[in-house]
Amino acid sequence: MMKKRIADILLSDSPADRMEVWGWVRTKRESRDFVFLEVNDGSCLKNLQAIVSADTVGFDLLDRASTGAAVHLEGSLVKSPGQGQRWELRARRLEILGEADTTYPLQKKRHTDEFLRTIAHLRPRTNKYGALNRIRAELAFGVHRFFHDNGFFHVHAPIITGSDCEGAGEMFQVTTLDLGNVPRKDGKADFGQDFFGREASLTVSGQLAAENLACALGRVYTFGPTFRAENSNTPKHAAEFWMIEPEMAFAGLPDNMDLGESCVKWLIGHLLDNCRDDLELFGNFVDKDLFATLDNIVSQSFVRIPYTEAVNILKAASRTFEFPVDFGADLQTEHERYLTEEYFKRPVIVFDYPKEIKAFYMRLNDDGKTVGAMDVLVPRIGELIGGSAREERLSVLERRIEELGLPKEEYWWYMDLRRYGTVPHAGFGMGFERLLMLVTGMANIRDVIPFPRTPRHLVF
Amino acid sequence: MMKKRIADILLSDSPADRMEVWGWVRTKRESRDFVFLEVNDGSCLKNLQAIVSADTVGFDLLDRASTGAAVHLEGSLVKSPGQGQRWELRARRLEILGEADTTYPLQKKRHTDEFLRTIAHLRPRTNKYGALNRIRAELAFGVHRFFHDNGFFHVHAPIITGSDCEGAGEMFQVTTLDLGNVPRKDGKADFGQDFFGREASLTVSGQLAAENLACALGRVYTFGPTFRAENSNTPKHAAEFWMIEPEMAFAGLPDNMDLGESCVKWLIGHLLDNCRDDLELFGNFVDKDLFATLDNIVSQSFVRIPYTEAVNILKAASRTFEFPVDFGADLQTEHERYLTEEYFKRPVIVFDYPKEIKAFYMRLNDDGKTVGAMDVLVPRIGELIGGSAREERLSVLERRIEELGLPKEEYWWYMDLRRYGTVPHAGFGMGFERLLMLVTGMANIRDVIPFPRTPRHLVF
Repeated sequence: MMKKRIADILLSDSPADRMEVWGWVRTKRESRDFVFLEVNDGSCLKNLQAIVSADTVGFDLLDRASTGAAVHLEGSLVKSPGQGQRWELRARRLEILGEADTTYPLQKKRHTDEFLRTIAHLRPRTNKYGALNRIRAELAFGVHRFFHDNGFFHVHAPIITGSDCEGAGEMFQVTTLDLGNVPRKDGKADFGQDFFGREASLTVSGQLAAENLACALGRVYTFGPTFRAENSNTPKHAAEFWMIEPEMAFAGLPDNMDLGESCVKWLIGHLLDNCRDDLELFGNFVDKDLFATLDNIVSQSFVRIPYTEAVNILKAASRTFEFPVDFGADLQTEHERYLTEEYFKRPVIVFDYPKEIKAFYMRLNDDGKTVGAMDVLVPRIGELIGGSAREERLSVLERRIEELGLPKEEYWWYMDLRRYGTVPHAGFGMGFERLLMLVTGMANIRDVIPFPRTPRHLVF
Repeated sequence: MMKKRIADILLSDSPADRMEVWGWVRTKRESRDFVFLEVNDGSCLKNLQAIVSADTVGFDLLDRASTGAAVHLEGSLVKSPGQGQRWELRARRLEILGEADTTYPLQKKRHTDEFLRTIAHLRPRTNKYGALNRIRAELAFGVHRFFHDNGFFHVHAPIITGSDCEGAGEMFQVTTLDLGNVPRKDGKADFGQDFFGREASLTVSGQLAAENLACALGRVYTFGPTFRAENSNTPKHAAEFWMIEPEMAFAGLPDNMDLGESCVKWLIGHLLDNCRDDLELFGNFVDKDLFATLDNIVSQSFVRIPYTEAVNILKAASRTFEFPVDFGADLQTEHERYLTEEYFKRPVIVFDYPKEIKAFYMRLNDDGKTVGAMDVLVPRIGELIGGSAREERLSVLERRIEELGLPKEEYWWYMDLRRYGTVPHAGFGMGFERLLMLVTGMANIRDVIPFPRTPRHLVF
């Protein structure tokens, strides 16, 4: 049987004569007759208060029970007379598992997010980053619950890919060639000698694989790491991030919008139900409007407007934007935020974008100018979801690939899906970290990933 | 509301006057007055039988409803008089969504696994690979359920790593340098100009990251892709595979064994409860002993023996092994399989291995010769799980790192975990694909991954 965690102990419905507790000391307070240890084991935000007195075995070890030390306590779980906690532990025995001397970087004081990034291996021991990691875990679980319970099969899209045409940005190369001495052939690197016998990269999207499997299993989703080798140091970009990509056969753009809206709402509801304490930390200390924002998303229906209409609203806006707005230009974050935060004051789904600014695989609309794309915009983040109906008509897809000068032969298997039993299908990608930033109010992607990877930064 | 899947329709508890069905034609049979279409939408192994007659709108389209074609049917769901199905659809309307002509590679006949690998984009449309992918999805979900419900937090270990000392095999390099023209400095590749300003690789294990987070959150697990650049073409090895790595603070080797045993049993039970039809396909056509093997694993307690004892058993075995057995040598698959299949006839946990054949981070036992390692061996697969108690004593860990000549400075953060509030902790790695091979009886890892990556093989 596994050890009881403090999260479980705090939910006890009766006192217990014998209880063992393992955890790390958060604070130590001394009164005349007792010493109070606030012990946390990472299972929840709350600490368990342990009371150590002169007749506790190990009382003489208290000097070593400083902030950050690991302890093992045994005693009775009793009703706490104090404020703010239901139970406390009257310790009969104290054992020090691991000390933490005064060089321990997490002494009891506020630390900046910037400083904590330099000790990413220790920051989950703080209240804030403990809460963040618990929310991250519950959100990930929620993703699996939501899709599983709605009949979607989880699929693992490959990470190493031979296709450089997923069409979503700069890629990292993967190789086993000796970079100090790359073999050459005909004046170029000889990839014939590489592990795969050809060039290989890290995936930027699992979509094409997901489409493959949706055209066999009906509804699928991926939830895996994706990579962009973009040299941009912004609070929104990381070189490695996790993406959720559902794909549905027998579905069109309206189904896709319904799925995106219900997914976001369900996930936020799931967190409000299961991570209340941890979310409150963010509502109290990170973003005072957090719960208002989340409640708004859960309770309002999302606005759905065509791109053309969105552009008209933006052009008529009384404020000036850094980037000009016009039909044919992609929306920037400032535009997206204006629409969702100021104009509509709730999430907005913009759809039917000009084909020129969207990927080759998006379904061409009857107007010949726009494609069945959709972006879901939410407050503070801007684009949370980007998706589309996929072009399922072989001849139209071939024409698009030719128009864009893409290497048709690379897509033989993708076109086979349209050659044999093709079906209307649609899907989207949702950045997991963006979702986390939305639900916590955190402003920098570096702070919602345990060990972030950004340009010139690869530690831990 | 999402469209009803055939899996749901087959579970209907009453007839329905109006029902719509989307799917792909598996077979078409003609009788005197009717045409029977077996339609599958990938949601389950079973097909829905649709009956098309002369008064069905679209009856004239039947020529195009060949194997592999996508169709949309509308009609009444009625009790089926036929054998083997409860419901059938009396079609009022037939629509062809996508044809599949006679070049469709999946005409109704048996195909070899080898052939199907060459059309990995279509093979999930077969009964066998549809079942396989559904089992894969349910097993993945089960992993999340099991750990979540046991108080483990899901963490995402980084995929790109700067550490080349995770100690588990050859690594792929990750770079944005131009391989046709690598910049040089001091006669070597100049990684200062690379994306991260240093050498980068693909992770071989999320363990070190998991340890970090376990030493803050208590119990965590990773479930992500890992990579080995080993040039070995065997049925058991892929360059990219998914691994499950739980890590528990305040835990030792016995807890670790308990966790491994209960995890494997629970997951198999979960599949037996939720994937019966799909598993039966494998029990019927792939491995006749499949259910006996699975029932045996679920119902028996796992044997637990020290490595020394395992070696003695193997030395006393009446059969000859390809590889010699002696204290200090690692066990080979033939040895592992002998122990679990022939000698004990149930799963076996071998523990306390000689330190020389195990990784630096495993906890040194008091004998000074062995470490608190454990391998879980199961029939047909051999090693399914490899794990250990971790060395939590800073001085012992430092000594081991020095003994092995590893670059100590690379491990500053790993050693910090031992410097500040160190705790006994333990964890293991379980190969997700090995588990899938165990539960399906499939013999080649290439056939349990949607798009496998192996030496000189990178398609789709």
